[in-house]
Order: sequence, then structure tokens, then C-alpha cells
Amino acid sequence: MRNPFFDNVGPFEINDILNSLNIDNEKNYYSGLVKDINDLISADTNTISFFHSNKYKYLANKTKASFCITTESLANDLPIHCKPIIVKNVLITTAKITEKFYPKSVTDNFDINTKIIEQTNYKDTVTYGKNVLIGENVHIGKNCSIGHNSIIEKNVKIGDNCSIGSNSIIRNSLIKNNVNILDSCVIGKKGFGFFPDIKHNIRYPHIGYVMIDDNAEIGCGATIDRGSMSNTVIGKNTFLDNQIHIAHNVKIGDNSIIAGQVGIAGSTIIGNNVKIGGQSGISGHLNIGNNVEIAGGSGVIRNVPDNLRVMGYPAKKIKDFIRENK
Amino acid sequence: MRNPFFDNVGPFEINDILNSLNIDNEKNYYSGLVKDINDLISADTNTISFFHSNKYKYLANKTKASFCITTESLANDLPIHCKPIIVKNVLITTAKITEKFYPKSVTDNFDINTKIIEQTNYKDTVTYGKNVLIGENVHIGKNCSIGHNSIIEKNVKIGDNCSIGSNSIIRNSLIKNNVNILDSCVIGKKGFGFFPDIKHNIRYPHIGYVMIDDNAEIGCGATIDRGSMSNTVIGKNTFLDNQIHIAHNVKIGDNSIIAGQVGIAGSTIIGNNVKIGGQSGISGHLNIGNNVEIAGGSGVIRNVPDNLRVMGYPAKKIKDFIRENK
Amino acid sequence: MRNPFFDNVGPFEINDILNSLNIDNEKNYYSGLVKDINDLISADTNTISFFHSNKYKYLANKTKASFCITTESLANDLPIHCKPIIVKNVLITTAKITEKFYPKSVTDNFDINTKIIEQTNYKDTVTYGKNVLIGENVHIGKNCSIGHNSIIEKNVKIGDNCSIGSNSIIRNSLIKNNVNILDSCVIGKKGFGFFPDIKHNIRYPHIGYVMIDDNAEIGCGATIDRGSMSNTVIGKNTFLDNQIHIAHNVKIGDNSIIAGQVGIAGSTIIGNNVKIGGQSGISGHLNIGNNVEIAGGSGVIRNVPDNLRVMGYPAKKIKDFIRENK
Repeated sequence: MRNPFFDNVGPFEINDILNSLNIDNEKNYYSGLVKDINDLISADTNTISFFHSNKYKYLANKTKASFCITTESLANDLPIHCKPIIVKNVLITTAKITEKFYPKSVTDNFDINTKIIEQTNYKDTVTYGKNVLIGENVHIGKNCSIGHNSIIEKNVKIGDNCSIGSNSIIRNSLIKNNVNILDSCVIGKKGFGFFPDIKHNIRYPHIGYVMIDDNAEIGCGATIDRGSMSNTVIGKNTFLDNQIHIAHNVKIGDNSIIAGQVGIAGSTIIGNNVKIGGQSGISGHLNIGNNVEIAGGSGVIRNVPDNLRVMGYPAKKIKDFIRENK
Repeated sequence: MRNPFFDNVGPFEINDILNSLNIDNEKNYYSGLVKDINDLISADTNTISFFHSNKYKYLANKTKASFCITTESLANDLPIHCKPIIVKNVLITTAKITEKFYPKSVTDNFDINTKIIEQTNYKDTVTYGKNVLIGENVHIGKNCSIGHNSIIEKNVKIGDNCSIGSNSIIRNSLIKNNVNILDSCVIGKKGFGFFPDIKHNIRYPHIGYVMIDDNAEIGCGATIDRGSMSNTVIGKNTFLDNQIHIAHNVKIGDNSIIAGQVGIAGSTIIGNNVKIGGQSGISGHLNIGNNVEIAGGSGVIRNVPDNLRVMGYPAKKIKDFIRENK
Repeated sequence: MRNPFFDNVGPFEINDILNSLNIDNEKNYYSGLVKDINDLISADTNTISFFHSNKYKYLANKTKASFCITTESLANDLPIHCKPIIVKNVLITTAKITEKFYPKSVTDNFDINTKIIEQTNYKDTVTYGKNVLIGENVHIGKNCSIGHNSIIEKNVKIGDNCSIGSNSIIRNSLIKNNVNILDSCVIGKKGFGFFPDIKHNIRYPHIGYVMIDDNAEIGCGATIDRGSMSNTVIGKNTFLDNQIHIAHNVKIGDNSIIAGQVGIAGSTIIGNNVKIGGQSGISGHLNIGNNVEIAGGSGVIRNVPDNLRVMGYPAKKIKDFIRENK
């Protein structure tokens, strides 16, 4: 899929990629055009992917990628059409190649190319406050309002009937219809993802975006980071209270209700009709099923299957928690 | 009591109310003027109230309301002068009738009717920063300061000697004297209250306000939501640290100290001289007594009587918690 | 050391200090010039210090201060050259004397003496957004950017290659090179330190600053309070995620990684290479060693030695926590 927001400056010859990163081209892949970099599932022929952990073996088997960054020990699990690029640290190399294709996805300095809304076409179609700024590649639908001092930075698509509060900042986001975003939010910034390195951590690119679906509401002071290789998603009719933090790649389903000060760590996937009480925290890379209820203050560190009610830190079945804490 | 901030567009004939909501008028209340909608205690003659749970039976007995939205099974507990309106979902009907009386209390889009302070009378009486906006129905006392980019939206009364920081947003609030509100706060927005409904949650109106009493201080990044049917209150000389979330209808007494990142859920009532440590969370609809101390990180899910020191999640007597966690 | 940001309006005669505070000058210290007020360690000859708790006895023994505010029972632990000033409440007297030397350190009203950046010399050397404000005594290095609506209040030094986001507020801070501060932060405000007093709490002065060292990154919505008598420090290459609260006097070492919504209470000292998971809270006045890992959601209420991995509330060895919570 074409990235809707970040320009892909490829394709590159595989040889050029390897040379520019000083990767030993021991298998002599001296020809082959690489059009993009993707995760194992979405990678297509003539793209490069990455495979860094045993637990993705079942995906590696089926990848359509023509090349794959991986380690000596994992390389055998790739299909025959997918040529392994053996490196020591798969993720650092992935970050560097992603940056090569998407050089603008690394820095998140403020968007200097915004204009005050009065200088754009939206002056006639949007209800707006004082000091509203609009970046490049921004589309805003019908019947929308944007509050005072809010900044719609580059790469934002807003549907119809949306209301954005005051003092909010949005970039790299796809906002559908009838969405309310309240005051002082920051949506679409790069996630807290980097490779720790003494003296100077290495940032990895975030080429994903934030998608907020129809009828959703985002409370005051929210921070919702955009995805790295995939997207961060807030489902239809899902409501977030104030001061919530949603990390990169998190996906929340439809009709969910999330109370104040909840934090959800990176890449966790949450189902539909989920209720999360105030101040709960959910660790990264978890699966929370449909119709799950998480009591306020809980710390969820394991997957939660459908229909379960949990409470506590670590969160367990609510009946067990209450029985143990009478 | 007359609502100080929201215009009541009533009175309405009871018949008109019921018809407009398609409520079966089986008891033929074809006459009767309704002036307002209130909770069971503050309701007066010629007003309508609501009664949805057994636990408010003792209040229902004493209500002065002339009409009351309730269920078949609860109706018998109303006094004889109070005519029951039987519905399936009391709270949804209450929300709809409240919206009928107070149509402006539902949407919380940014306040488009603000002016830059230089265009108001406050240019001579307030010490102000750049880009300060003032809404309609705003009163500001003597010797006040308002920082850069702050927005005093409609329906705000500020007393004397108050200091508002920069980047803060205030609406529907009554701020008394000598109050400090620091930077980046959002005060007086509607609470996180609605009726979950597949595809499109139903918001209920918030006709209350935020009252911040003399000498109080509100730290940076606070969100304090206004009440739905009652008010949200911060008592005299009560100090809130940074990043605190106070939900709708919460009432905090005097001389209390609340450390950073605390969250207090809706309708909880907190006494005087209470100390709450950082990151503690308090569930909704609880009573926390006077002189209570809640250790940092606690999760309070039950009422706490006067003078108790508690800790843990769920919070228990601090001695018990420490003994069990040596 | 000379305070880099707050003007010391001393020296004062010790007699004048005592008289102005109505402190009984029973030992007849009718001569002696006092140049400054400092903690026991940094106090030098001709300065005054304070000593209020038994646990600082070992520091009191070695202080070079000429005078020391203390209690009857502690006075004997001061060295012979250090004359005790006996008072009932050491900290309140300390606050009052600090305020006498540094009268501008008490109020933190918005900085009215800012100018829009176009009216300063930085218009040619800084990459800046709309509506950027710059206070007095601000120095900004080469190759820096400051986003829309950000306010650099008085007393800020920013090194080279720094990026400040939009809607952020900074004062009383020393920011070194290659630092990123993202959006909606409030950095350098007074801490949440005061003496509780019925009707009107007594604020104590904050004469310290915030120091953010080379290559650090501060996430969106952070609040980092400046120190009271010492400084608040974020070490080299230390990264903070979104919505983090760092209280006054906290010192964090180098190469540390702190996830979203973490809160660190006042005066806690954290080592190098520390990892802190999301939503963790750390009590005040603790020592957290080097290479410590604190799992997400933990509540740390005791010191943690080097190299330990902890989890839980109260935090304990991670192995113990997991074994007990299988």
C-alpha cells in the first residue's frame, strides 16, 4: 500500500542499500530493485522486510518480500523467493533502511510550513478560532470547527462534522467523520521508539499514522502517537476521557470507553466494546479481547481473552481480586 | 436556584415535554407547567426530577418536585404530590429533558464568541499576556493576571487577586479570590458522562459549573470537568499539584493537599484537611472523610471514614498495608 | 556558587535578618554579614544554612556555614564556627530568609516581560513558528528551532542544535546541546512545595533551576519543576516519554529511559542507565541506583540499589513479584 503521508524516495538497488549501510554483501545480491520496506505481512514482491524474532516464524514463512533483513539463525525460515540479508541487529538495520526510503519520517520538529487559516481555502469552509494554523497536505471536510491556537500540521485528513478544540496539535493523522477532539491534545507525533545507545540513542522512523474512526471522542490533554511500521487506530464510537496516553501502533476497537489517565503501551491491540477504568495501564504487545472490562487502577501485563472482567496489578479475574482483597 | 451560567429556555407544559420525547402520557398529565429539572433534593414545586435507583429512596420520599422520571417499580416511593413519569431508561430521559431546558449545555465546541482582551474593558484592569481571549458573560475582579494564550471562554467569574497562567482554558467556572491557576489547564469542560450506545453514544448535558474557592491553587496541566446536575468544587486553600484530573461533580473540601498525577472519578466527595499522595486514584461516587491521608500510588475503591490513613490498591489502613508488605 | 538566574539582594546583617523575622536574638548575634542562604553542604563561610532533622547530622557536622537555623535539640551537632539560630519551625524560617535574599523566587505569575521573537535578535538565528515569545535573560545557541506558541520565559539558557516543540513553556532552565523538548511541556515552574497552614498555605521559594543535559529528549505534556534549594536535573541522553511529571530537586542520571505517565516525587535521585516502565511512580527523597529497571505500573517507596530489577507496589525484586503473582 502506498503510504498516504510520507514520500517514499525509492526505489533503490539492493546493492546500493547494502553498500550505503556498510552491510557485507556476502551473498552478492548485485541486482534487484527494492520499492519499499514493509512488515512481513504487508510486504510484496520487490520489497524488503525484516524478521527478528522466533515468534514471527509463522509470518516469515508466508512473506512475499523479495528480501528480508534477519539473522543467521532465523534465515532458514524464510521462503525460497525471499533472500536473507544477514545482520547483527535486525531492528537497527531496519530503522536505517526505513529512513533511507522515508527520510522525512525521522524528525518531528515543529511544522514550519503552516499558514494561518485565513490564508488558506479553509477560511470559508471551517468554523475557526483565533490563531489557527494549517500545514501542507491537509484536507478538512464539511461542517468542521477548529478552536483557538490549534495547529493542524502537515499530513492530516479530517472528515465531515468534526470538532477540534483549542490548543491542540495534530499531524500525520486520518480523522474520519463526526469525531470530537477536545483541548490541548497532541496527536500524530512520533512514538517513543528508539534503540538505546550510549551517548546518543538511535531513533527509528515512524512512517505510520493515527487513524481516528467515525464518532470517536478524544478527551483533553491526550497524547496519541503515530505508528512506526503500522498505524495507531482509535475505533468507531470509542470515547477517551482526559489525560490519556496512547502509544505507537496501538489499535483500539469500536464502542470502547476509556476513562481518565489511562495509558496503553506500544503495539497493544484492544477489541470492541471494551471498558477501561481510570488510571489503568496496559503493557505493550498485548491482545485484549472484545467485551473486556478492566477496573480502574489496574495494571494489565498479560493478554485478556474476550468477555473477561479483570482488576488489580497484575490484573486478574475481578472475582479473584475482590475475594483476595476483602 | 437559578443556574448562573446556562440559560433555562423553559418553562414547558408537561404535556409538551412528554410529547416531544414520545413518552407515553398514560396518566394524562395534560396540564402543569414545569420550570426546571433538578436532582431530588434541590427540586422545587413545579419542577421535574429523576429517581433511578433504590439507594436514593430516602431522598425520593422527601422531594418537592411536582413530577419525577422514574420506573414502574420505584414510583411508589415518591410522595403523593410528585407525579411519576414512567420510562424504561430514567437517565436517558433525564438527559433529553435536561437538554430541552438547557440546549446550550450539550456541545462543548470551542467558544467562537471570544474577543482579544484588548477589545474588552479588562484591558485596563487586568494584567495580561499576549493573545489572551475573553468570552461572553465573563467577570474578572481586581488585581488579576492572565498569562499568554490563555482563553477565558464564556460563563466565567473570577474574583480578586487571582493569577491565571499561560495556555490555560477556562469556561463555566466560578473562581473566588486569591486563586492561582497555573499553565496549560483545562477547567470547566463537560465531564466524561454519556450513555453508551452502539454506533453513537448519547451525551448527557452538563449544566453544573466548576467552583474554585479562596486561596486555592491548581497546578499545571490540570483538567477539572464541570458538573452534570451539580457542581465540581475545589475548597478553600486546597492545593493541587501538576497533571491532576478531577472529574465531574467531585467536591473537595478545604485545606487539602493533592500531589501530582492524582485522578478523582466522578461524583466523589472529599473532606477537609485531606492529603493525597502522587498518582493515587479514587473511584467515583465515594465519600472520603476529613483529615484522611492517602499514600501515593493508592487506589481507593471504598469510602474512607474521618481521620484514617490508607495505602495500597485497594487502599486499606496504612499499618495493615505496611505490615503485609514488609 | 552564584545563582545563575535569581538575583541575590543581600548581603544582610544577621541582626537585621533576625529582627525582620521577629526571631528572638537571644544569643546577641549583633554583628556578622550574611551573603547567602544555602543547604548544609554548599553553604560557605558568611552564609546561613538550615538543619531540621536528625538524619542530616553527618552533614551538619561538616558545614562551613557561619550561621544555621535549627532547633534547640539539634544545635549541639553544629561545628563550633557555626552559630545556631534557634527557632520553632526550621523550614518556615528558612523559607522566609530565602525569600528575603531572593524576593523574585516566590511568585510564578506569567512572565509579562516577554517579547515576540521577531522583536529580538533571535529572529535571525533561530528557526521559529508563529507567536513565539522570548523573555529577559534568555540565551539561545546555534541551529535551534522553537515551535508555534511556545514561550521561553525569563532565565533560560539553550545550547546548540536544540528543538523545542509547539505550545511549550520554559523558564529558569539550563538546556544544553542537542536537546529535544516536544509539545505542550511546562518546564522550570516552582515545585509543589509549601508549608501547610490553615486558611493560607505558606509557599517556600524555589531558587533552583532545571538542567537538561546533552542529547536528552522530553516528551509531550511533561511538567518538570525547578528545584527549591538545589536543581532538578535530567542527565545526558536520557529520554522521557509523554505526560511525565518530574518534581522539584529530582536528579536523573545519564542514558536513562522513562516511559509514559511516570511521576517522580521531590528530591529523589536516580542513577545512570535506569529504565522505568510506564505509569510507575517513585516516592520522594529516595535513591535509585545505576542500571536499575523498574517495571511499568510499579510504585517505588524504598531505595533501590544498583543493578536491581523491581516491580509491584510496593516495588520488590521482579522475581519475587512474578513468583507471588503467578
